Amino acid sequence: MEGERKIPEFYIILVEPKYGGNIGAVARIMANFDFKNLFLVNPCKLDDECYARAMHAQKILEDAKFFSSFEKAVKNIDYLVATSSIDSKSDKRHLRNPVMLEVFSKNIYDAQGKIGLVFGREDYGLYNQEIATCDIMVKIPTDESYQSLNLSHAVGVFLYSLYINKESKKKIKRTIGKIEKEKLYSFFSELLDEINYPLHKKENTEVMFKRIMGRAIPSKWEYHTLMGVFSKTLDKIRKKK
Amino acid sequence: MEGERKIPEFYIILVEPKYGGNIGAVARIMANFDFKNLFLVNPCKLDDECYARAMHAQKILEDAKFFSSFEKAVKNIDYLVATSSIDSKSDKRHLRNPVMLEVFSKNIYDAQGKIGLVFGREDYGLYNQEIATCDIMVKIPTDESYQSLNLSHAVGVFLYSLYINKESKKKIKRTIGKIEKEKLYSFFSELLDEINYPLHKKENTEVMFKRIMGRAIPSKWEYHTLMGVFSKTLDKIRKKK
Repeated sequence: MEGERKIPEFYIILVEPKYGGNIGAVARIMANFDFKNLFLVNPCKLDDECYARAMHAQKILEDAKFFSSFEKAVKNIDYLVATSSIDSKSDKRHLRNPVMLEVFSKNIYDAQGKIGLVFGREDYGLYNQEIATCDIMVKIPTDESYQSLNLSHAVGVFLYSLYINKESKKKIKRTIGKIEKEKLYSFFSELLDEINYPLHKKENTEVMFKRIMGRAIPSKWEYHTLMGVFSKTLDKIRKKK
Repeated sequence: MEGERKIPEFYIILVEPKYGGNIGAVARIMANFDFKNLFLVNPCKLDDECYARAMHAQKILEDAKFFSSFEKAVKNIDYLVATSSIDSKSDKRHLRNPVMLEVFSKNIYDAQGKIGLVFGREDYGLYNQEIATCDIMVKIPTDESYQSLNLSHAVGVFLYSLYINKESKKKIKRTIGKIEKEKLYSFFSELLDEINYPLHKKENTEVMFKRIMGRAIPSKWEYHTLMGVFSKTLDKIRKKK
């Protein structure tokens, strides 16, 4: 509706959860913080333990959507958020270079559309390929001595952080959607090709660009301006050929 | 020691918890957020489920102290905090008139001594008499439609809130400094010149780039990667001249 402020709509996406009790506990904490949409990718059986721990959040379990793959689950999501409480010391630094949960929660209400919060397996978390698909990685801060959170606690802390920031944000800002984002990323990728960017570094640098934009959350206006700069740059290089 | 800043020491006090699984989950989330002291008032048996859910936080269970009454548990605590996620509509309003968790967490690090965080029973919470004993009541905000948190999630959200306020006093991230920022902006400006960007739009677009980077807060490593891309792009354009 005209003049109406759209707020982001959140989807809690659990990738291959292994324990029904965790899924039930996630449903309950979602209800506690007023989240409704639960996506389950190849979950275990929703057993008695699951329904018992959901308590008064049975409806969230009833309304949950099931997917046979991660790709199918995230197909219509505008902005994908990988979550983790584990620091990576690996060389995939861009991939996992995270923004802190408190910072994310303050900024995300400037965005619109469908926001997918992706939580990985109880044992392995998210695979690198799944993380690379996401627009941003958010870290839930934990103590170095024991970083691994129980799945439902990771969701709980995350949703609490969003919940307390929801009311404090009323600012109106028009942000870009999935199609615009992909155009922007693909222009950047074309630019890397045109400047003969080393192939072995290309993917990492693309992810870095995604992360920077993911943290900055560009407005429509910024998007069009950036696209103008990219487009003129590409023209300039190609004309000279 | 003279001149040394004492920080508060926290004690997690569970009053008559009924499920071993909850106690185990509390132990785990305590370890995740670097809390060590667990007091148990008339708990249920610490069963297999309890030890299983504690995962790598067995030491917290081993070191837990047992008390036969609330009074005995809190005898040596300097500052007692009753916790709840439930609003009271009763006439005992003064008793339950709470401070919000976010506010409490910001302020408590100014305190010293032993701080007891008291969490009530899974079903009845804390009795009025127990609340009256406490110095303050802290409310964990939850949605009105379903306020009752699982015990371990109440503890989890509470400790997360304390943890991020502790960390925010010593957070260090290697971000770029003034000189690097200015180099980055000036490369962007050179790029605009090279692509014959309309002069009347140039200043605006430079500011936009600054704002995007200001929100993204690039790491040193991202900075060097971005500079590499800019530098190769400028080279490419200039060589073609």
